[in-house]
Amino acid sequence: MAFFNRKDIDELEKYYKINLINSCSGFKSANLLGSISKEGNTNVAVFSSVTHLGSKPPTLGFILRPTTVPRNTHKNLKETGVFTINHIWEDVIEDAHHTSASYPEHISEFKVTNLEEEYKGNFKAPFVKGAPVQMAMKFVEEIHVASNNVWLIVAQIEELYVDDKILKEDGLINLAEGNIATINGLDTYAIPKFKQQLSYQRPKKM
Amino acid sequence: MAFFNRKDIDELEKYYKINLINSCSGFKSANLLGSISKEGNTNVAVFSSVTHLGSKPPTLGFILRPTTVPRNTHKNLKETGVFTINHIWEDVIEDAHHTSASYPEHISEFKVTNLEEEYKGNFKAPFVKGAPVQMAMKFVEEIHVASNNVWLIVAQIEELYVDDKILKEDGLINLAEGNIATINGLDTYAIPKFKQQLSYQRPKKM
Repeated sequence: MAFFNRKDIDELEKYYKINLINSCSGFKSANLLGSISKEGNTNVAVFSSVTHLGSKPPTLGFILRPTTVPRNTHKNLKETGVFTINHIWEDVIEDAHHTSASYPEHISEFKVTNLEEEYKGNFKAPFVKGAPVQMAMKFVEEIHVASNNVWLIVAQIEELYVDDKILKEDGLINLAEGNIATINGLDTYAIPKFKQQLSYQRPKKM
Repeated sequence: MAFFNRKDIDELEKYYKINLINSCSGFKSANLLGSISKEGNTNVAVFSSVTHLGSKPPTLGFILRPTTVPRNTHKNLKETGVFTINHIWEDVIEDAHHTSASYPEHISEFKVTNLEEEYKGNFKAPFVKGAPVQMAMKFVEEIHVASNNVWLIVAQIEELYVDDKILKEDGLINLAEGNIATINGLDTYAIPKFKQQLSYQRPKKM
């Protein structure tokens, strides 16, 4: 096996290092976060760090690095208190990834890609039309991770839309049936194939 | 599309709700965390919340819910300051998932499954033998998320082992080539197939 100790990692060439360390945690969620500024400028940006924090209340989190691009998302969600999370599916991977480019705030990524805005009910932030899972999110708190100077953004689910075809009787959203993508590292996309559903595990009798 | 507002979610039957909210964030990492108590009892447990926090220093985090099972991992990593992260691959999914059963501390999941302990160099905590990615981790800090009463455990990578066959020239670990699994919800496993590697995105000329 290839081996890297901490000193090796710290001394790696910059792009090799970010590819390596971004891909070593395993497969990541592939989401588009939709938001709108108080002036009405929309934004949509790819994120790969959305993580389940709890079901009661229904809470998700994502990581924001001060030094990376998608800061309009953060500015907008702080201004309005809301944003959307939309799953990336196979057909839109290239447009979804392009939202990582750094556009000035007045140019919406919805204008420069084929991704389409969708508004539902009274919710202020734009959803991504066609996404098999769409969530209306309310900002709750942001927590500083001092050792690494990143922020954990915590938000609760206000509304959840799921394609009927992938919602199962037990509440599982079968993501593979929706051709939903996963992100590997910074720029690599994969499409998972369903393998098996197991059950709640109890200790074996010995 | 199926629609749930916050009131609908809060009123869902318990198991339907945890399936739904655990699967709505997207695909998750599939890892086995290996640890050892100060008395020498080993533990290995499945986690689906390991997330990249940064590359400089190389930092990962995971979420610990006080009310869920794998607390021996937490006790051990606080006692010794170290643990391992090992990727779950296709051949070991059933044994990996079985580690979510609640065993008393003196019964190691390495004994009741076919997962095998592996020790490397002077690192105290056990790795999972055969895993295509293995990491020696040093505990750094734990951060309370008050709104939801969960903890973000922050750790740095001390040593990284990667199967040579899946480590690419640009530093990408091609997880799909290692038949590495992803978790969908609480108990469903999928195997991603490589789709495409894109590049660093710059704004389009307009």
